[in-house]
Amino acid sequence: MRYRHPDPAQIRIDGVLSALGHPVRLASVRILDGGGVHNCGDIVKILGATSKSTMTHHWRVLREAGVIFQEPSGRENLLRLRRPDLDTRYPGLLDAVLAGAATDDVTD
Amino acid sequence: MRYRHPDPAQIRIDGVLSALGHPVRLASVRILDGGGVHNCGDIVKILGATSKSTMTHHWRVLREAGVIFQEPSGRENLLRLRRPDLDTRYPGLLDAVLAGAATDDVTD
Repeated sequence: MRYRHPDPAQIRIDGVLSALGHPVRLASVRILDGGGVHNCGDIVKILGATSKSTMTHHWRVLREAGVIFQEPSGRENLLRLRRPDLDTRYPGLLDAVLAGAATDDVTD
Repeated sequence: MRYRHPDPAQIRIDGVLSALGHPVRLASVRILDGGGVHNCGDIVKILGATSKSTMTHHWRVLREAGVIFQEPSGRENLLRLRRPDLDTRYPGLLDAVLAGAATDDVTD
């Protein structure tokens, strides 16, 4: 099964913000921003205990908002941040969000 | 009744993103970004038909996330965008979000 992804022109800012506006999804995006393709199981390991069905939901929200590419690979899924698409469509947004998340780390 | 508002240091990026990640709340913030204090009834008029209870919910989400100040005034509420607080805590975020919303306008 291949997943459907929105074209860059179909991405909407409210969907992106809503997708990023959850601690687990934001933490996942921060990991993915390290670059390259990540196995979803590896991200779950880094984030700690979260049920598989919950993560399936989170990947779907991120994918449908246009934040990540998700491709099946055997029994796993490979995830990749759509940074070029997001940076082109909403310049500075992802940088500001990720810097903001780092700011919160210091405050917490 | 006075409303409670988070201090700047209590604001969290996921709460801000989640608050902004709804079309009605984002549209409200765009109006408030014009500057000054707005009567909530006036914003509802600009946005068109939305139930009062729904808007009460949206103001609460924005207020609790630290995006707006909300102060009672007679039977109405006065709203003000917390732009200085947000710009200080998350530099560039609100600018990127509002520019992104304008980008979507062109695409829609």
